[in-house]
Amino acid sequence: MNQRSDITFTAAQVEALEHRLHQDIPLSVAMGVTVRSVDANVLTLHAPLAPNHNHKGTLFGGSVYSLAVLAAWSWLYVNTQAQGMDGHIVIQGGSIEYPLPVSGDGLGICHPVTEEAWARFAQTFARRGKARINVSSVVRGEGGAADAARFAGVFVLHR
Amino acid sequence: MNQRSDITFTAAQVEALEHRLHQDIPLSVAMGVTVRSVDANVLTLHAPLAPNHNHKGTLFGGSVYSLAVLAAWSWLYVNTQAQGMDGHIVIQGGSIEYPLPVSGDGLGICHPVTEEAWARFAQTFARRGKARINVSSVVRGEGGAADAARFAGVFVLHR
Repeated sequence: MNQRSDITFTAAQVEALEHRLHQDIPLSVAMGVTVRSVDANVLTLHAPLAPNHNHKGTLFGGSVYSLAVLAAWSWLYVNTQAQGMDGHIVIQGGSIEYPLPVSGDGLGICHPVTEEAWARFAQTFARRGKARINVSSVVRGEGGAADAARFAGVFVLHR
Repeated sequence: MNQRSDITFTAAQVEALEHRLHQDIPLSVAMGVTVRSVDANVLTLHAPLAPNHNHKGTLFGGSVYSLAVLAAWSWLYVNTQAQGMDGHIVIQGGSIEYPLPVSGDGLGICHPVTEEAWARFAQTFARRGKARINVSSVVRGEGGAADAARFAGVFVLHR
C-alpha cells in the first residue's frame, strides 16, 4: 500500500490536471502534452514527436527533460492536492541521462515515491510549511519498454 | 587565447545559427528563442517570458533547461563547424540547479570550455571519429547579473 492507494482518479480529474498544465505552462501546449493516465500507481503524460523533434528527427533533449519534469510535477501536484497539502511546488534542481534516442512520440512516466519518503515529506510540510522531496520519472518511446531517459528532480512544496 | 580567438562571427553567421536552430528544433520557435550574440568568448541566446512562463509567472524549469541546452549546443555547433569538425552532436546527459526564479525574459549564456578540454576533444575526434565533451551554460534574467540556473551537459560529437 502506498500513500495514494485509496485515491481513485476520475476522467474529470484527469481532464482537470491536463487543463491545469495547459493553463499554467504554455510550453506544455506548444509541446502537445496530454495526460494519458493517472492511476493509483503511475502517472503518464504523452508528447507527440512533431513539435518536439531535433536535427536527427528524434525527440529534442529539452523536450524530453520537460516531459519528464511535467510528469514528476504532475504526480506531486495530484498527490499533494489529494491530501489537502496546499502550497506551491518549485523545482530546485534536476538531472537527466539519455541512454536511448526516441524516434516517435514520447511518454513521461512517474512512479510513486516510497511510503517512507512521502511520510517524511508530509510530516515536514505539516510542521514547517515547507518540505523537499525527490521525485523521479522516465521517458520512453510510445510502445517501447526501455527507458530512453531517466530524470531525477528535487522539488520543494511551500505554503 | 582560446580555441576560438581567431574566429569572427558576422551578422550573417549569427543569422545562420538562428535559422539552423529554428529549422532543426521547432521547440526553439515555440519558445521564441533568438541568438542575441556570438563573439569570440560568449554565446548568448534570448527567450521571452510569455511563451515560457509557469504557474508562478516565472520561467518554467523545462524552458530554462531547454534554453541552457540550446546555448551549450549552439556553442559546440559553431565551434565544431568553424574547425571543420563535421559530425552530429548528441546530448548524453545534463544536470541543472535553479538557485533563483526568472521573472522576465531569460538569457542562455555559454562560455568557452578550457583550451585543454577543447584540445583533448578535437584530438580524440580526429583519431576516433567520436569524442565526448562537457559544456556548461547559465541562465540569467535579462539585465540580471546573478545566475538563475546553472547547467552542465555532456555532449558527444560523432561522424
